[in-house]
Amino acid sequence: MESLGVVKHIFLAKFKADITPERIEEFIKTFGNLVTVIEPFKSLQWGEDISIENQQQGFTHVFECTFDNVEGLDAYLAHPAHVEFANQILPAVEKYIVIDYKPMRFV
Amino acid sequence: MESLGVVKHIFLAKFKADITPERIEEFIKTFGNLVTVIEPFKSLQWGEDISIENQQQGFTHVFECTFDNVEGLDAYLAHPAHVEFANQILPAVEKYIVIDYKPMRFV
Repeated sequence: MESLGVVKHIFLAKFKADITPERIEEFIKTFGNLVTVIEPFKSLQWGEDISIENQQQGFTHVFECTFDNVEGLDAYLAHPAHVEFANQILPAVEKYIVIDYKPMRFV
Repeated sequence: MESLGVVKHIFLAKFKADITPERIEEFIKTFGNLVTVIEPFKSLQWGEDISIENQQQGFTHVFECTFDNVEGLDAYLAHPAHVEFANQILPAVEKYIVIDYKPMRFV
């Protein structure tokens, strides 16, 4: 097995019932724009839950952020543009999970 | 924005306190071996939680499985080797989340 040599930051969100799809789309655009604003933030992937196993515990969206290393993730977390975005999106979610890891894979 | 054209299957686990690191390593090896046994299962990435934000809700491990499409994910879920593995690992976890999505990204 080998390390991919990156750090992934997973954000699972359950948006509140009164948050419209249009507002969620705005959040996603703002989130994606952070990639251009915060240098160590390398890429954002996201999508809506499509699981049929009924073990998503109500979470509706996955966001996966990639960084070169832990220092990059720390710089992102502390960056004013990220703090501002967090202050916008967190009041719109009923619950969320943040989990970070250094992905390994079999080769 | 564009679709990556794949389906990702995220499994977050909180292992029970009495599950040893050695046993977790065995689970990971068995999980990784499914990539060679179940054709539509394209890759497995995993890692231990390293988040400093204290929003991981107790989850200790991330597993990210990639499939070409929903049909591939469905075939994996129904495959006897996956069912056997699920029957082994689930009794070892205190809680888990499964969430699937078709990742999009900005280009």
